[in-house]
Amino acid sequence: MPSSPNAPWSLARRAERLEPSVIREILKITEQPGILSLAGGLPAPESFPVEAMREACQRVLTDTPREALQYAASEGYGPLRDWVAAQLGTQGMAVQASQVLITTGSQQGLDLVGKLLIDAGSRVAVEAPTYLGALQAFAPYEPEFVAVDCDEQGPLPQGLAAAAGARFLYLLPNFQNPSGRSMGAARRIEVAQAAARAGLALVEDNPYGELWFDAPPPPPISATAGEGSIYLGSFSKVLAPGLRLGYVVAPPALYPKLLQAKQAADLHTPGFNQRVAHEVIRNGFLDTHLPMVRARYKAQRDAMRAALDKHLPAGCRFNVPAGGMFFWVELPAQLDAVALLPKAVAAGMAYVPGAPFYCHAPRLNTLRLRFVTLAPAQIEQGVAALGRVLRDALEARP
Amino acid sequence: MPSSPNAPWSLARRAERLEPSVIREILKITEQPGILSLAGGLPAPESFPVEAMREACQRVLTDTPREALQYAASEGYGPLRDWVAAQLGTQGMAVQASQVLITTGSQQGLDLVGKLLIDAGSRVAVEAPTYLGALQAFAPYEPEFVAVDCDEQGPLPQGLAAAAGARFLYLLPNFQNPSGRSMGAARRIEVAQAAARAGLALVEDNPYGELWFDAPPPPPISATAGEGSIYLGSFSKVLAPGLRLGYVVAPPALYPKLLQAKQAADLHTPGFNQRVAHEVIRNGFLDTHLPMVRARYKAQRDAMRAALDKHLPAGCRFNVPAGGMFFWVELPAQLDAVALLPKAVAAGMAYVPGAPFYCHAPRLNTLRLRFVTLAPAQIEQGVAALGRVLRDALEARP
Repeated sequence: MPSSPNAPWSLARRAERLEPSVIREILKITEQPGILSLAGGLPAPESFPVEAMREACQRVLTDTPREALQYAASEGYGPLRDWVAAQLGTQGMAVQASQVLITTGSQQGLDLVGKLLIDAGSRVAVEAPTYLGALQAFAPYEPEFVAVDCDEQGPLPQGLAAAAGARFLYLLPNFQNPSGRSMGAARRIEVAQAAARAGLALVEDNPYGELWFDAPPPPPISATAGEGSIYLGSFSKVLAPGLRLGYVVAPPALYPKLLQAKQAADLHTPGFNQRVAHEVIRNGFLDTHLPMVRARYKAQRDAMRAALDKHLPAGCRFNVPAGGMFFWVELPAQLDAVALLPKAVAAGMAYVPGAPFYCHAPRLNTLRLRFVTLAPAQIEQGVAALGRVLRDALEARP
Repeated sequence: MPSSPNAPWSLARRAERLEPSVIREILKITEQPGILSLAGGLPAPESFPVEAMREACQRVLTDTPREALQYAASEGYGPLRDWVAAQLGTQGMAVQASQVLITTGSQQGLDLVGKLLIDAGSRVAVEAPTYLGALQAFAPYEPEFVAVDCDEQGPLPQGLAAAAGARFLYLLPNFQNPSGRSMGAARRIEVAQAAARAGLALVEDNPYGELWFDAPPPPPISATAGEGSIYLGSFSKVLAPGLRLGYVVAPPALYPKLLQAKQAADLHTPGFNQRVAHEVIRNGFLDTHLPMVRARYKAQRDAMRAALDKHLPAGCRFNVPAGGMFFWVELPAQLDAVALLPKAVAAGMAYVPGAPFYCHAPRLNTLRLRFVTLAPAQIEQGVAALGRVLRDALEARP
């Protein structure tokens, strides 16, 4: 467009709360040939069901092309909503298909939750650290974030009192992004009960729950919290993120307004994608597909664990995730993972600094490592490079 | 989920502005076998490029399956952004690909524009009538809508003074939904100049521009308004709406914040869909496809025009759209199209009442007729049924 003397734009106040995604900026640098990237939250492309997708596309475009390519219901494709409700039933959550809203990735679910529930100045309680994408989805609605006290299992039940009056507490109970930690069965029930006593609503996000390595996680918190909880799920890690398919399960009292927010946001999630995904999964495909993904990721988790044991200098700490995609590393207190990232990239590897995952009081000496996209030998190479960078930094600052 | 004694939800104030879509509620009743529906804004499914889509899906899943199914850039697929910029160039708009943001349907573009530009209480100027989906996208951001004076070409240049101080004026210059009207070349330039004088930003929405019947429309208003305008386009009417692909072209000064709003909303539009659409269109497919769609729609437009001439009672007025998908009918002042709809459905046809398309002072004696999904003989049947309903109503209220 040609330049105009008069550029009459005024931004909404909430635009001040929109910021560049630190991680997406990092990815531009790091997801490049020659860098052993342990950075972004990308699932392994080798795990994408390409053949099944190809067949499903053909079938959908042969059997129901016009329905798949026409405008469709804002709620989502009926058989896919049925599938989600049935699947959650096997995990201990009694859900009606009428409570399921299909979203354009679960990121959209977070945006719709924010749109529906957050006023400027509303308190929103989160874990520390928590999923950066959720902070970014909620931020434009101008909340005041409150971090609840956490331990290695996530939020402490006695910490919830500090969140009283918040519009909701946002939780990732399974293999949390970024920390890799999980809430045990007892902790889930205690947190659900403490939330109910405090009159605190819950928003439970579960993108990684199917990526368990040894045993499935306990039932969702929403199974206990009932109408006091919204639950978000995703097909990004069980099928492929490029389809942008997620879902929100909402209490019946909230569903109509959530649906209206969805209509206003994008009318509906692509019907073609919903039908293709349903065609892929409807006959038990995940029963054979997911065990392969789990076995692959577990071997990579084991490789990274061994590499971290071998290469990290003394004073570093890490958990061992029981599923998901991430290790979380705490460096000696004097190290700053943001400042060290360029050195790591120069050494041929990349990670994500932990600081952006905190709503307040970022812990600069933390970082996240993705273990699912490189082969075990490359994982060791990448971690070895990280170890050298950290040792150099420790020697430079005795 | 089991019922809980404690349902601790508080909705955001903006949720009061979320309402059920009148049209989507109507569609549930009317888009059913046995009803001659002239109601919803559905393009003709016979026009969907099913074969080309089937081939494109195969090619994308053979050539670049991992890229297509992985997370992707929030800006959109580079070659598709290039294509959009080049295409707009042929329509007189000089655009850089770096100004193009691919969205999940152009409805998402409207939501992002609202998120970025509207504060509670901001004035937003619109045509009367205007696209209902835009009112719904903007409403949750709590604007005060202002209707500008319009004639049969849309907004009057001298009417723009009333919109001074508004965050923007939202315009649909080509074959407007719902009115079918278009702005001539001179009017576009006058409106762009009047807007610049008034310091009024423009948001130009062009989903129907390619559906012209005799001659292409004049260049977009954005070609004149330059950095004072945002432009929205869509693939829903040239390929298929079930892909949910649209785009926003933003001035460079606004693009970064718009991109951040997009990231927060759904990370990115499905990469698979973007690559499939690009594969379909990249070698001139639309040069042969669009003339077929135009010829089909023109014949249907002509059939509806003849039917309206033949069957509407005296006192009804309608325009003759030069493109797009809709006729707009003004009934005698004493008739209420909302109240008459059940009678029309009982008579075997359906339309959309015009009232919801007005932000204020709805004109109850208006209705919209879609002409693109039924064969000419069915169009005549449907319009004949409408004529009988209207005549009965006029006789009942002399």
